[in-house]
Amino acid sequence: MSDQKVYRATTTAPVNIAVIKYWGKRDASLNLPTNSSLSVTLSQRSLRTLTTASCSASYPAGDTLTLNGAPQDITSSKRTLACLEGLRSLRRELEAKDPSLPKLSNFPLRIVSENNFPTAAGLASSAAGFAALVRAVADLYELPQSATELSRIARQGSGSACRSLLGGYVAWRAGTQADGSDSIAEEVAPASHWPNMRALILVVSAAKKDVPSTEGMQTTVATSELFATRANTVVPARMDAIEKAIHNRDFHTFAEVTMRDSNTFHAVCLDSWPPISYMNDVSRAAVRLVHDLNRIAGRTVAAYTFDAGPNPVIYYLEEDSDIVAGTFKSILGSGVEGWEGPFSDVLQNAKGVDLKSLDSRAVDVLGSGITRVILTGVGEGPEKVDTHLVGEKGEILKSQ
Amino acid sequence: MSDQKVYRATTTAPVNIAVIKYWGKRDASLNLPTNSSLSVTLSQRSLRTLTTASCSASYPAGDTLTLNGAPQDITSSKRTLACLEGLRSLRRELEAKDPSLPKLSNFPLRIVSENNFPTAAGLASSAAGFAALVRAVADLYELPQSATELSRIARQGSGSACRSLLGGYVAWRAGTQADGSDSIAEEVAPASHWPNMRALILVVSAAKKDVPSTEGMQTTVATSELFATRANTVVPARMDAIEKAIHNRDFHTFAEVTMRDSNTFHAVCLDSWPPISYMNDVSRAAVRLVHDLNRIAGRTVAAYTFDAGPNPVIYYLEEDSDIVAGTFKSILGSGVEGWEGPFSDVLQNAKGVDLKSLDSRAVDVLGSGITRVILTGVGEGPEKVDTHLVGEKGEILKSQ
Repeated sequence: MSDQKVYRATTTAPVNIAVIKYWGKRDASLNLPTNSSLSVTLSQRSLRTLTTASCSASYPAGDTLTLNGAPQDITSSKRTLACLEGLRSLRRELEAKDPSLPKLSNFPLRIVSENNFPTAAGLASSAAGFAALVRAVADLYELPQSATELSRIARQGSGSACRSLLGGYVAWRAGTQADGSDSIAEEVAPASHWPNMRALILVVSAAKKDVPSTEGMQTTVATSELFATRANTVVPARMDAIEKAIHNRDFHTFAEVTMRDSNTFHAVCLDSWPPISYMNDVSRAAVRLVHDLNRIAGRTVAAYTFDAGPNPVIYYLEEDSDIVAGTFKSILGSGVEGWEGPFSDVLQNAKGVDLKSLDSRAVDVLGSGITRVILTGVGEGPEKVDTHLVGEKGEILKSQ
Repeated sequence: MSDQKVYRATTTAPVNIAVIKYWGKRDASLNLPTNSSLSVTLSQRSLRTLTTASCSASYPAGDTLTLNGAPQDITSSKRTLACLEGLRSLRRELEAKDPSLPKLSNFPLRIVSENNFPTAAGLASSAAGFAALVRAVADLYELPQSATELSRIARQGSGSACRSLLGGYVAWRAGTQADGSDSIAEEVAPASHWPNMRALILVVSAAKKDVPSTEGMQTTVATSELFATRANTVVPARMDAIEKAIHNRDFHTFAEVTMRDSNTFHAVCLDSWPPISYMNDVSRAAVRLVHDLNRIAGRTVAAYTFDAGPNPVIYYLEEDSDIVAGTFKSILGSGVEGWEGPFSDVLQNAKGVDLKSLDSRAVDVLGSGITRVILTGVGEGPEKVDTHLVGEKGEILKSQ
C-alpha cells in the first residue's frame, strides 16, 4: 500500500420534508432544537445529493470541498469544519485502538458533491448535503457508528441534516443535554412499513428571497410570545400523535397533524417581531384546494406542509394519486415541468374530481403561480455507491 | 300633545379600528369576549353612520329598520332584537318611576340608518351601525345611562359596537361576570388627549369574501392551540402597555404593540383548524413597507393593523403625514380614489423618502392592489344631530 494512495467512499443522501417542524434552537452553535421534529425521507429516485469523500497523503495540505462544480471556502464554514472535526476525532479513536490502520485522520480531505436537482427548484439542499458529507466521510473512515450516532455530527452541519441520515419516517429527538449528546435522529418506521406515502412538491414561481431559516428561527425564539406554547406543549403532543399514526398507517391523523403543525409553525413566524411570512397567496391557494379536495373526497386524501418558503408539499397515498396528484395536474395544465419520471406511473388527470367544485379563485391563483412540480415518495436513507466523483488519482470527475 | 305625535332622535356614530384585537367569545349570545380590546375611534368627518330613531302610537304594530334605503327583516335579527329589548326595558323603568312620561316603550319603533361610506370600501359597518342604533334609541327614550352603561346593550348587537359609543381611545373590558354586566367599554383617553393620531385605510381591490368574523372567532376558540396563550397572557400585558403608551403619547410603543397584536391575532387565525387567512400578498406588502418606512425614518413613524380582512390600516401622527401618507400616495399613484377631503390638508408626496430605498417588490404589489384610500384620524363619539331621516309625520326621508 503506497502512502500516495487515494482513499475514496461515495454515498447518496436524501432530502427530507418535516411533518412536525424544526423551528428554534436552544443552542445555536450545536444546532440543538427547542422541540423534537419528525420528517419523511424522500426517495432518491427523485431528489438526492451524491458525495464522494476522499483523502490521501498525496493531497496538498488543507481540506477542500467542491459543490456542484464550484470550489467552496471550507475554512469560513464553521458548520462544515465542525462536522469534519467530529468525524476525524472518531477516526483517531479507531487509529489509536488499532495501530495497523492507515492514519487517514492526518490526510487532507477532498470532498466533491453534486445535487441532482436544480437550485431553481427552491428546495433547501443543506439537509441532504450535510447528510451525504457526513455519511461519505464516515464510510471513508470506516467508522463503526450507527446512523443515529452519526446524526449528532450531521446535526451540527444543518439541524435537519440529522434526519436525512435515515430512511422512512424519522424523528429528531430534541434531547435535554447541554452537549447535545441526546439530540439525535432515530427511525420511527422504515419506508417499507408505509411504502405508499407519496409527496408532490409544487415549486412556486418567482419566489422572493425569504428570511434565512437560521435567522428566522432565532427571531421567533427571541420575540414570539406564542412560541413557547408551541415548543413546550403543542409539539410534544403532536409528536406522540403522529408517531402513533405512522405506526398505524392512519393517514387521516397523519395528515391532520401535518397540516396543523405547518400552520402553527407559520403562525409563530407571523407572531415574530418583525413578522416573518414564508407563505404567499399561491401557498394559500394550495391550502384551500387541499381542504376542498378532502371535502369533495369525503375523507382525508391529502395533506399540505410548508417549510421556510412558499412551496407547498402535498402528502398523499399512492392509491389516491389520481384524485390528488391528478387534480393538481389538471389545475396546473401542461405548462408545468416535472410530471414525468419516477412516481408518475399511476397518474391520471383528476379522476373523480370535478374541477368546478373547487374554489375557482384558488384554482386560478395556483394555476398561474407554479412553474414545476416534483413527484416523489417516501424513500431510503443514504446509500453507498461506486460512482465516485473523485478518480483513483484524486482528480475531480465530471457529473454523469 | 297628541298621541299621534312622532317622537324622533338622530345621532351619528363612528367607526373604530382596534389596536388590541377582539377575537373570541366566551359567551356567543351575549357577545362576551375572551379578552379585553382597545380601539381608536375614527373621525366622523370621514366615516359615520347616521341613524334616526322614531316612535309613535300612530305607527303600525312592529318595529322597523331601514338601512341605506332597504327595509330590514328585524324579526330575524336576534342581535337587533336584543338591543331594542334592552333599551325598551330601561325606558320602562323610567316610565314606571315617572307616570307623567309618555309610554314610548309601548310604541312601535321606526329606525332609519345610513352610512356615508360605500359598502365597496370593505369596512365593517356593524360597529358604527349598532352604536348609532343604540345611541339614537337611548336619546329618543331620554335614557339617563352613560355611554359606558349603554355599551352593555350595544355589545349585544355587535361586540365591537360597544367601543363606537365613545370617542378617542376606548377599552372594552372583557369582564368576568356571566351576565356580562362588567363587559363594558370605557374611555382610556379622549380624542383631545392625543388629537394628532391619523389613520390611513388602504382598500384592497377584489377582496375575496372572508370567513365571517363570528364564525372565524368561534373556530379559533375551539381549535387553535395557541389561542389561550394570546387571550390569557399576551393580551393582558399588551393592554397595560398600550394604555400607558396612550397616556404618555408614546407613539413608538403604541405602534409596536399595535403591529404585534395584529400579527398575533392573524397568527391564531392561521393556527385555527381549518386555518383562517385574512391577510393576502397585498396586505403583506403593506407590512413590509411600514417596516421599511420605520427603518428609513430611523424611528417609528407608522403602524399597521389588520381586522378580519386584507385591508391595511396605517396609524401615524399628523406631523408625519408627509413621510407616511405621502409615501403611500407616491406608491399608489394617481389611479386611487380618496386622497381628497378631510385630513388631506398636510399631505405631500413622500417627503424625505426615496421610494427606491423601499422593497421594490412590495411597492409593485401594493401599487397594483389598492383601489381606494380613506384618510382619517382619531375622533369623537356619537353626536346628536337634527338632520333626521324620519319626517315629522313619520315619513322616511331621503339621504342629504
